[in-house]
Amino acid sequence: MPRIERTEVEFEGRVEEREIIVEEEGVAPWDEDAGLREVGQPSPRVDGAARVTGQALYTSDVQLPGQLVAKVLRSPHVHGRIVSVDSSAAEALPGVYLVWHRGQPPPVTRHRGRELFPEELAYQGAEIALVVAADERTAEEARDAIDVTVEKLAFVETLEAALAEHAPPALTRTRGNVINPEGRVYERGDVEEGWVDAEVTVSLSFTTPNASHSPLEPHATVARWEGDELTVWESTQGVFSVRNGLAETLRMGHGKVRVICDYMGGGFGAKQQPGRYTVLAALAARETGRPVRLVLDRMEEQLVGGYRPATKQRIRVGARQDGTLTCLEHDVWEHMGAFGHPGYMVAGPTRSLYACPNVRTRVRGVRANTDRGRAFRGPGYVEGIFALESAMDALADELGVDPLDLRLKNYAEVDPAEGTPYTGKGLREVYEIGSQRSGWRDRRGLAREEGPWRRGWGMASQIWGGGGGPPANAIVKLLPDGTAEVLAGVQDIGTGTKTVLAQIAAEELGLPLAAVRVVVGDTGVTPYGPTSAGSQTLPSMGPAVRAAARACLRDVLDLAAQMVGEGEAGGDAFFVEDGEIIYEANPDVSIPFREVAVKMDGYTLVGDGARGPNPRQKRVNTFGAHFAQVEVNVETGQVRVLDLVAVHDVGRVINPMTATNQVYGGVIQGLGLGTMEERILDGETGLQLTANLEAYRLPTMMDVPGIEVSFLDRADAEANSIGARGLGEPPIIPAPAAVANAVADALGVRLTDLPITPRRVLRALQEREEAAR
Amino acid sequence: MPRIERTEVEFEGRVEEREIIVEEEGVAPWDEDAGLREVGQPSPRVDGAARVTGQALYTSDVQLPGQLVAKVLRSPHVHGRIVSVDSSAAEALPGVYLVWHRGQPPPVTRHRGRELFPEELAYQGAEIALVVAADERTAEEARDAIDVTVEKLAFVETLEAALAEHAPPALTRTRGNVINPEGRVYERGDVEEGWVDAEVTVSLSFTTPNASHSPLEPHATVARWEGDELTVWESTQGVFSVRNGLAETLRMGHGKVRVICDYMGGGFGAKQQPGRYTVLAALAARETGRPVRLVLDRMEEQLVGGYRPATKQRIRVGARQDGTLTCLEHDVWEHMGAFGHPGYMVAGPTRSLYACPNVRTRVRGVRANTDRGRAFRGPGYVEGIFALESAMDALADELGVDPLDLRLKNYAEVDPAEGTPYTGKGLREVYEIGSQRSGWRDRRGLAREEGPWRRGWGMASQIWGGGGGPPANAIVKLLPDGTAEVLAGVQDIGTGTKTVLAQIAAEELGLPLAAVRVVVGDTGVTPYGPTSAGSQTLPSMGPAVRAAARACLRDVLDLAAQMVGEGEAGGDAFFVEDGEIIYEANPDVSIPFREVAVKMDGYTLVGDGARGPNPRQKRVNTFGAHFAQVEVNVETGQVRVLDLVAVHDVGRVINPMTATNQVYGGVIQGLGLGTMEERILDGETGLQLTANLEAYRLPTMMDVPGIEVSFLDRADAEANSIGARGLGEPPIIPAPAAVANAVADALGVRLTDLPITPRRVLRALQEREEAAR
Repeated sequence: MPRIERTEVEFEGRVEEREIIVEEEGVAPWDEDAGLREVGQPSPRVDGAARVTGQALYTSDVQLPGQLVAKVLRSPHVHGRIVSVDSSAAEALPGVYLVWHRGQPPPVTRHRGRELFPEELAYQGAEIALVVAADERTAEEARDAIDVTVEKLAFVETLEAALAEHAPPALTRTRGNVINPEGRVYERGDVEEGWVDAEVTVSLSFTTPNASHSPLEPHATVARWEGDELTVWESTQGVFSVRNGLAETLRMGHGKVRVICDYMGGGFGAKQQPGRYTVLAALAARETGRPVRLVLDRMEEQLVGGYRPATKQRIRVGARQDGTLTCLEHDVWEHMGAFGHPGYMVAGPTRSLYACPNVRTRVRGVRANTDRGRAFRGPGYVEGIFALESAMDALADELGVDPLDLRLKNYAEVDPAEGTPYTGKGLREVYEIGSQRSGWRDRRGLAREEGPWRRGWGMASQIWGGGGGPPANAIVKLLPDGTAEVLAGVQDIGTGTKTVLAQIAAEELGLPLAAVRVVVGDTGVTPYGPTSAGSQTLPSMGPAVRAAARACLRDVLDLAAQMVGEGEAGGDAFFVEDGEIIYEANPDVSIPFREVAVKMDGYTLVGDGARGPNPRQKRVNTFGAHFAQVEVNVETGQVRVLDLVAVHDVGRVINPMTATNQVYGGVIQGLGLGTMEERILDGETGLQLTANLEAYRLPTMMDVPGIEVSFLDRADAEANSIGARGLGEPPIIPAPAAVANAVADALGVRLTDLPITPRRVLRALQEREEAAR
Repeated sequence: MPRIERTEVEFEGRVEEREIIVEEEGVAPWDEDAGLREVGQPSPRVDGAARVTGQALYTSDVQLPGQLVAKVLRSPHVHGRIVSVDSSAAEALPGVYLVWHRGQPPPVTRHRGRELFPEELAYQGAEIALVVAADERTAEEARDAIDVTVEKLAFVETLEAALAEHAPPALTRTRGNVINPEGRVYERGDVEEGWVDAEVTVSLSFTTPNASHSPLEPHATVARWEGDELTVWESTQGVFSVRNGLAETLRMGHGKVRVICDYMGGGFGAKQQPGRYTVLAALAARETGRPVRLVLDRMEEQLVGGYRPATKQRIRVGARQDGTLTCLEHDVWEHMGAFGHPGYMVAGPTRSLYACPNVRTRVRGVRANTDRGRAFRGPGYVEGIFALESAMDALADELGVDPLDLRLKNYAEVDPAEGTPYTGKGLREVYEIGSQRSGWRDRRGLAREEGPWRRGWGMASQIWGGGGGPPANAIVKLLPDGTAEVLAGVQDIGTGTKTVLAQIAAEELGLPLAAVRVVVGDTGVTPYGPTSAGSQTLPSMGPAVRAAARACLRDVLDLAAQMVGEGEAGGDAFFVEDGEIIYEANPDVSIPFREVAVKMDGYTLVGDGARGPNPRQKRVNTFGAHFAQVEVNVETGQVRVLDLVAVHDVGRVINPMTATNQVYGGVIQGLGLGTMEERILDGETGLQLTANLEAYRLPTMMDVPGIEVSFLDRADAEANSIGARGLGEPPIIPAPAAVANAVADALGVRLTDLPITPRRVLRALQEREEAAR
């Protein structure tokens, strides 16, 4: 029975307490020695074949009768004010159904507090007009036929420019570019006393760049109306948040908006909400009475598809000679764009990774003339860990101790912020595994120099949330042929969600994996599930699926009891093993699972379940560490990552194959951030010079080192009934820091600006040389 | 809790006992004075706007990337044997992906026991080859480029031809054309004694024609594969039976086949199973790795889309002078086609309508060279009622009593076959209402002649099943904005199913109709529901939806109890009224429904429910009567139906508007059968002369008389928790009989062959004249 409870809800590393409805899962955690059959198996993705053969349908594959094409005319300037828009030539083109702009606005003019067609164009790519036409070419022609006059305004393109004295405002109606000048401050202990206690201090400044999410599939929507009901196919990480956002903007009931995302090609945090394009497509479809498709092209994707906010950070660490931390201070400025919020959790690791008694962190969001920054896989934590773990290595250097020993010295047995115990923290074991696999303790004996190449080793730690939590609901249906269907309100954003949910249901029902089909990504049919963000999909929905499967199984066992003539004993007296339902009191009395199912004829057994409440007075976190080996060419500045050992503690690993692939992806993306990815904005014009995939450098397979993945794989029975925590974000978090530490080890010079490009390497070497003179 | 139970299951008027899983509905029937808000309202269809604006998506609207078009080459002969097929020219055409025929067969060669490409072509339209091409035109070209040599065989096209002495066999491998020469025999009492007791007898022979279902939307399928999972969009009355049929033929698990039918444009019995075209499309999609669309054209629809089997009937009635029936004998031959089953329930009404002690009926199926006959709205009963009610009128004539009085004299208070009481039988009241509304008792005083026009009145009774029953399951979800979604495994075949299910859920949840959305027609997401046939959709699924809504409401009330601080009392102590949840013990303590929903935030409350077991030792039947007034032109033979009063007892009427529309549709279709519709097969070639909508005459709006619809509208609390029985078939059943009786009344000559065309009228008048000479 559901009940109302105050509980902690976690999102993007932030934890807040809310009153929500919760329901017990009604299943005990699996024993370690439960003899699990499907859970823990490295099963290939259930939809793998469809993905690689082109059968999988993505949003832009949706074709509906009479479907129109929409295109957006976007600001070519980084900051300006619209003087006039003349769309008469566009409207005169045959095949043009609709043109909207400031002068002839849509029936709804605002989305999430902002105008859909603003007068002030605060970034390159800002919406000026929408055209809807019969086909792609006509839509493009019409878009290009719109005549716009813009008065250019002064702009600030980068953090540096925005923070400069007398910088022009990114938005004319605001004063200054710091969104929250006082900053979001966290403090524990007595920082001043910490400095007094410190025998050694390190103070360093860092920058990290704006980086593009670069999903293979761009943001895309197809909208259609049927009466007063709207269906939207959207490439999204959160079908329910898109539904809720659209319902709010369009002032519709939730049940009147159906959002579908069958397959999607990557989001990484950039696809958590309905876009402005989504709202425009929905409105245009209503206006024209025809389905409307709006797919961003790659340039639009680079301009308005989101980015990881650049940071400027200053971190100061104080410690005793024995390495015990006495003090941590961390100041952060984040490039949030013209309409960004006050910033992500860059200081999160500084607060939670080490057992330091005195900590003060401050995060400020900064406006600049770009579209808003968005969460990008491990938002804040990637940048924060880069700074913190670089500083820890610098401190280890100062103290002359091994970086790993310094970390062990300051190991937090309980959450250092609140003193709360963890449901499970295996970071010590993670360090040990990583150290062994990478040969960390033996590295000093290896050759460090070969021609112009210098070799170095570096490691970094990872902490993140990933405990998930309610609300998340699932339905399981048992079919007459002994197969089952799972309805879960999540979406598979490429991580293998369908597969692991199928494994969990198969495990609980005692069925083979092939007998379970999973439906996700459709708000019209599934109960609620969370956005796939914050590494919460599996730990939130997994237990809900298990609970639903169990509810369904209870009916099966009751029927089995009746069928073997033990109806009096009831289903509770039975258990399933290898597809056989067995009477506990007399194992000779049994009946195949399939026979019960067949008996159902048409009848569908239905079970529903919910993710239970979060554990009380316990913290649920994920942990990990990366150990990197690099070569740096002191003549060309080239950085080569030779190998990387990634070890993670995410509780029980449901599927080692998909989990390992998750880590591969995260590490590669982390290496991109560490060594090549960067949005470059032109100082003269403010325009992005990297608004395509030629100029914006992403890692290719040629850039990928040997990656060795390990998991602690220890069920976290206190976290939830499946014992698993999330793995979406962890693998990207420590990768740039590990590489930076390895580069510093190789060169004896610390690079504090990401990405570590050849140019930056050479400049650092040159500066050292100059300083040495 | 579900349990296993032996219960009666009804389908197409046939009742059989089976062991199935059943579950109590857990809700008491609504009181007559329950103050229902939504149930009983004449609400327009929830999807009405989408249907009339073209937004509704039908199977042929489905467009998938890379979709191919399939066409079938069909036998141009009515009976033959394939000598050779040469498809080389077709295969050589650019854009042709696949050609299958007997010489190069698909990987699966049989469906439901028959070859997909048979050597013996037993009817016009039999499948010879399948072509799959990039587009419509190429597919047609390829189909026409196939060179086939067929050896023609002797054929039998009609019942008469098939039953003739020395008739050639419709199938070469069979002997004689009667499928079951002994017939399906039913007997009660002592028929010979009945004849001895009879003081008056009537013996008549009848014929009824093969008639086309003529759905507006032809049979259509689109098939696509994703890995080993098949999705089929199908214009069907039974998504689950298509799923089961495909799974069986393709040897797949049920969960691997998903069948979707969002909107469909009429089936009337012809779309209950996967077609041979469905299987071919699914196989071709697997073979080509591309989605495949196969839509029958109108000629194919007429040839292989199904038809109501023609009948030849002989009925004999014996009675005492006071009108008491002593004996009924009914012999039937049904034109089932080359592969038809042994026949429908033509003798059903003879067994069940009147309290006659001595009855013998015999039905025989007859093979002829046409595709198989199929159930067509009220299968058997339309034809049987035509014969029985014509005979009853003839008997009334003999006895000189009013036809209505004769029927009342033989009124069956309990089921005459088994002596079982009915859950509700209001036929006596139906007669009374119809008599009053039609002015039946005053008709003799009206003018009967005007120029060449003769006026007449006729009535006929209706009996049918329509009680529905398990298995049928539903899921109800409550959303955070206080709206609800219903998942039900039925399909809306045009009858307003979505609307009435929404009304039932809204009623139970205390929500307005607009707050409920219904999902049907998708086996991939909904639990099981029955085929929309046998007038069972509403009485089967309605109670399941109500039970699911109640299960969901229980959680709402429990939460409400907690929210108002009466958690101890529990939800059972609360009730809903006008959107307010009220504490029974203290009505001042209440909370708006919406507030509970809002508190849910993301949480989805889920309830599931099932249609409970059928009532024990009770018969559930629907009843009705039609009263028609006609004019017949004795010079031209033209029959004009002036008006028709239709009265039905189907228990509670959930939606008087959609119910009334159902009756309109049924009556119009019945009048078509009575006066114009007929497949005409050429005696020379056996080919159908009516294989298009020009030659096959359907009623148009110009042919529709004034139709006055009434319902007894008395809840049948014993039948199920919503008190409603089915209405799909009842309105067509008595219409042709009522018209035939009215024509007989107008002319003083009884026409015993349907349809009553001008030609037949003139012939009958001529015969009377000749006989009088």
